Amino acid sequence: MTQANGKVYHHQVVVQWGDTDPAKIAFYPNFFTWFDESTRGLFDSVGLDWDMLMDRYGVVGVPIVTVNATFRRPAVFRDNLVVESSITSWNDSTFVVTHRVLRDTHLIAEGTETRVWAAHHPDDPNRLRPTPIPPEIIAAFTPNEA
Amino acid sequence: MTQANGKVYHHQVVVQWGDTDPAKIAFYPNFFTWFDESTRGLFDSVGLDWDMLMDRYGVVGVPIVTVNATFRRPAVFRDNLVVESSITSWNDSTFVVTHRVLRDTHLIAEGTETRVWAAHHPDDPNRLRPTPIPPEIIAAFTPNEA
Amino acid sequence: MTQANGKVYHHQVVVQWGDTDPAKIAFYPNFFTWFDESTRGLFDSVGLDWDMLMDRYGVVGVPIVTVNATFRRPAVFRDNLVVESSITSWNDSTFVVTHRVLRDTHLIAEGTETRVWAAHHPDDPNRLRPTPIPPEIIAAFTPNEA
Amino acid sequence: MTQANGKVYHHQVVVQWGDTDPAKIAFYPNFFTWFDESTRGLFDSVGLDWDMLMDRYGVVGVPIVTVNATFRRPAVFRDNLVVESSITSWNDSTFVVTHRVLRDTHLIAEGTETRVWAAHHPDDPNRLRPTPIPPEIIAAFTPNEA
Repeated sequence: MTQANGKVYHHQVVVQWGDTDPAKIAFYPNFFTWFDESTRGLFDSVGLDWDMLMDRYGVVGVPIVTVNATFRRPAVFRDNLVVESSITSWNDSTFVVTHRVLRDTHLIAEGTETRVWAAHHPDDPNRLRPTPIPPEIIAAFTPNEA
Repeated sequence: MTQANGKVYHHQVVVQWGDTDPAKIAFYPNFFTWFDESTRGLFDSVGLDWDMLMDRYGVVGVPIVTVNATFRRPAVFRDNLVVESSITSWNDSTFVVTHRVLRDTHLIAEGTETRVWAAHHPDDPNRLRPTPIPPEIIAAFTPNEA
Repeated sequence: MTQANGKVYHHQVVVQWGDTDPAKIAFYPNFFTWFDESTRGLFDSVGLDWDMLMDRYGVVGVPIVTVNATFRRPAVFRDNLVVESSITSWNDSTFVVTHRVLRDTHLIAEGTETRVWAAHHPDDPNRLRPTPIPPEIIAAFTPNEA
Repeated sequence: MTQANGKVYHHQVVVQWGDTDPAKIAFYPNFFTWFDESTRGLFDSVGLDWDMLMDRYGVVGVPIVTVNATFRRPAVFRDNLVVESSITSWNDSTFVVTHRVLRDTHLIAEGTETRVWAAHHPDDPNRLRPTPIPPEIIAAFTPNEA
């Protein structure tokens, strides 16, 4: 496992009326939608559009394996949030994206997604198989590492 | 245009907490999700799974062209709704699905979707082209018409 | 009925992965979420935050009565859309918001929402009653009308 | 901490088209919507409708504190899933709900929600304060404990 210390992406979110529930706070599954959006934005920001991963690397994408979140303060309608996202560890075929959701300087929520670099299984196209992450992928997120 | 008088499908919906907004009523875009679900169910109910339309008929599906709805009474958390759906008119390459959303005998909302029988354009696969609806499709929804 | 020619609001939308469906286009109910967001933004832009309407005008808000949309071209993941919204007619207790969804200069979808200025019914707090729209509300959207 | 061994609730979910993404699998934030729905259903099933908690116990509800999930197999359009939910531990003012999502006998996903029994803070109605969970609440989920 490699501790990563690379690219940080900031994803802007405005909490919409439809994101809130009768308790007048953001319905919690929305935070995972924002995590997912921010992870895509992080990959886009280093030139790794997920739509191209199959053609260039033979993988179907980076499906989610596990995810968790801790909610510190409620988010409400019209809040301007920033999801601050970076890859915090790399394993052979998985990696961890850490997300912090901020409103100004206040931490609203934080969490991690573990995702897998996955190809179709050679014996069964309906199954996926974890595949070693190419070094150039890791390098794309840690551009200044000597 | 042919007035249709055929198959009626009933789609059950339970209004979930996450479907409601701070006004404690179902957020209105959800009604269109329920319309779409019920139209799929209507096609399934006559053996026309949308996944098979390309293989059997060369169409990409039945994309939405126009939709409208009128909201009569609010729906709230835990409501058991029934979406009552049927095809009410057939044109050359389009058809109209009429939906009524009921809670017991109360009409909550009603609306129509106009959808198109659409194939890829022969000159440009990114464009769609309206295509005549095969008579057997229309017949599938009006089984007893002599 | 008064034809309105006033304030136009522009609501920015980025189509997210979760907004798209297996056909790789934006799932159509999302357009109504964007209409609703833009209507709120339009009111906010003239200083009429919906949260204050009860205190200032005794109304519960501006519930939706009818809505329609026509879809011209599909929207896909990562599209930058603009919803251009304005109030196009005022009636005694209802008004019409017209929305046009654009990607650059291309019209993607258009539609209208009819909403009602609604107070609690004096005899039954669970029912709503249409209420005359105050002239100052109409004036707020047509600031330069002589 | 008390290990719980009580009431198990089964929440039925049909995966809808709009729940799936361009990869043709259920978009992962939906699993948390289903967790939340099932937790509400579990409380309803023992007569503890969340709408009544304020009146009867002075709490605002049981807000989410942390949540996690592991995804074992993808869920696809039309899948009939069952979310099997129970409270697996009770602490002073928090409790853990464990969820398993099954398609027939296959485990699709599993996870836990930690929620807090929370009242308004006496000094600031905008803040919440963890509050001891009444024994009768715990008893409601473990009816046969001698």
